[in-house]
Amino acid sequence: MTHAVAPQAARDPVLSRLASLSIDRGIGDLGRRLLELEGFVRDNLQDVDRALDEVPRNERMINAAAHHLLDLRGKHLRPMCVALASRLGSGFSAAARQLALAVELVHTATLLHDDVVDEAVTRRGRPTARVTYGNAASIFAGDWLLVGALQRVRATEVPGLLDRMLAIIEEMIIAESHQLERRGRIDGSVEDYLRIIEGKTAALFRWAMFAGARAGGLTLEQENALEQFGLHLGVAFQAVDDALDYGGDVATIGKDPGADLREGKLTYPLIVALDREPRLSELLHALVADGEAPEATSAAVTSAVELVRRSGALEATRAFAQGHVELALEALACIEPGMAKDQLLTVAVASLGRTA
Amino acid sequence: MTHAVAPQAARDPVLSRLASLSIDRGIGDLGRRLLELEGFVRDNLQDVDRALDEVPRNERMINAAAHHLLDLRGKHLRPMCVALASRLGSGFSAAARQLALAVELVHTATLLHDDVVDEAVTRRGRPTARVTYGNAASIFAGDWLLVGALQRVRATEVPGLLDRMLAIIEEMIIAESHQLERRGRIDGSVEDYLRIIEGKTAALFRWAMFAGARAGGLTLEQENALEQFGLHLGVAFQAVDDALDYGGDVATIGKDPGADLREGKLTYPLIVALDREPRLSELLHALVADGEAPEATSAAVTSAVELVRRSGALEATRAFAQGHVELALEALACIEPGMAKDQLLTVAVASLGRTA
Repeated sequence: MTHAVAPQAARDPVLSRLASLSIDRGIGDLGRRLLELEGFVRDNLQDVDRALDEVPRNERMINAAAHHLLDLRGKHLRPMCVALASRLGSGFSAAARQLALAVELVHTATLLHDDVVDEAVTRRGRPTARVTYGNAASIFAGDWLLVGALQRVRATEVPGLLDRMLAIIEEMIIAESHQLERRGRIDGSVEDYLRIIEGKTAALFRWAMFAGARAGGLTLEQENALEQFGLHLGVAFQAVDDALDYGGDVATIGKDPGADLREGKLTYPLIVALDREPRLSELLHALVADGEAPEATSAAVTSAVELVRRSGALEATRAFAQGHVELALEALACIEPGMAKDQLLTVAVASLGRTA
Repeated sequence: MTHAVAPQAARDPVLSRLASLSIDRGIGDLGRRLLELEGFVRDNLQDVDRALDEVPRNERMINAAAHHLLDLRGKHLRPMCVALASRLGSGFSAAARQLALAVELVHTATLLHDDVVDEAVTRRGRPTARVTYGNAASIFAGDWLLVGALQRVRATEVPGLLDRMLAIIEEMIIAESHQLERRGRIDGSVEDYLRIIEGKTAALFRWAMFAGARAGGLTLEQENALEQFGLHLGVAFQAVDDALDYGGDVATIGKDPGADLREGKLTYPLIVALDREPRLSELLHALVADGEAPEATSAAVTSAVELVRRSGALEATRAFAQGHVELALEALACIEPGMAKDQLLTVAVASLGRTA
């Protein structure tokens, strides 16, 4: 079993981690099957791309602001979740495709609003929609995509999905509010962090899995299992994102490192580093007190980012993410083996290896 | 008939206008019945107030931002529309009350987003939520109220209302986008203006009437009639609002006069005044070119407001509004006479007389 995986592992750090995780979890032939899955993933992504192309285009400013971000095409992880969950059952039907589109539209809507809230200038390596079209267009474009998403969910007539979507959006907004209230405060626990990212990120992954499961006609037990999978995948995904914010550079992550620090967001790497590095705490207190001098601030942020990197907090964050990926894999225990399940496992493990 | 109305008319300019309109339309005993209706209106408003008090309160910042505006209590015209339409049928039931609450929440959500977009500092005579709690809290509070409204509409299970609400919100957003694209352009026609206000204001009045009608179990013909009523009432209401922006003062309208001009919004009074006053056009062109000098700008805005007032454009705007009130009254021709109908007529006519 180890043999089948090793040649891939040597070439690819994601597959290497996948190999060791999959051996631990008794799914050691997973690495070997990855090549077969490549075409399967490509098909799913093409389906999602086609669905995204269906969002109408016109000369409206909100339309331009929405497509500005949609056209930069994210990783489409949430639509992938819908697609893969549905393929555990009756397949990626027309209804499931609309749900995959809807979840990407909700995600894009939250990014458009978040970028206004955070006064962000770069997203996916390009100027944000608010920079190009203004805050107003970005806010209204977010509203428009949200309504469009709800209309699409409604039109599928899959029972329970619209209510659940509304509840999930409410969870997301409350988590954003919680994050806002904490902004600039450099105390805070892992529990606070988890509460925020379960709401702002994992909730929508949960919905994506639930929506795919329900559209695919799965059992209640399978739906619950997939929702748990989505929850832990979402947490892992966000934790990796938060590590990349300190560990990446502008060319790979599409924005300046240390953005979370500048926005006063207390994420997992910072919580760990604050615990390990007394100097960091002093530096941040000085930063908060001295927020008015941009040049001094910029140098202090660079120093703080460096302290976080050197503290080992990024490795701790990836270990935290890996713990959640393991919980995600565990959640799938009741799901029958097969290509769709393997693909879900791959998505979960691959989320650890991403560098952008 | 004239006799019965005259004593009221002498005391109240609204009733005076109502009297002459109602005589024209052959509903001349309306003035006499107004006193009986007073208690009826008070009951409706108290019901709406109770419904608004049901919006949960907690320590969240979005909650505080939302209640900041909700607690300043607007005129509750939209919930009144739901209440009155439902009372033409089976009455202001628990479901209808939830719909009345929902329409006020959507309205409040749009104000929270609009105030961010317009960088408004005053609303209902108080600092805007964005001034007190920040733009971010104001955006998320708007999102939260919107979701809360949709959840309430959904929970009533009155057929067709949620779909219609989503479509109406989309209309509102598109109209806001249209207004945004036109911002700062001082050309434009009454048709452009009508298109914008039908979307941004009248659409929600239409939904309020439709929702009340459907909750009250009215016929399709009555639903259509009430939607037409809502459309014209909404247009009249917005036109009066736009006249007040030039004609009122900060103590009565709760914000500085000339706000629309400063925000570059081309409203009915300005369209008329531009047509009548060549000096106004010169002044505005200079304003657009010279937008960087705040003191000079402030003096120019004051001069422009004065020119609009002196051009007779405010009287023309009120005449335009009155035309739409007449269309609203006409739309109710197929509705049986009675106290609920009288109340709707009163609301429509009273919308012309308001000074705040």
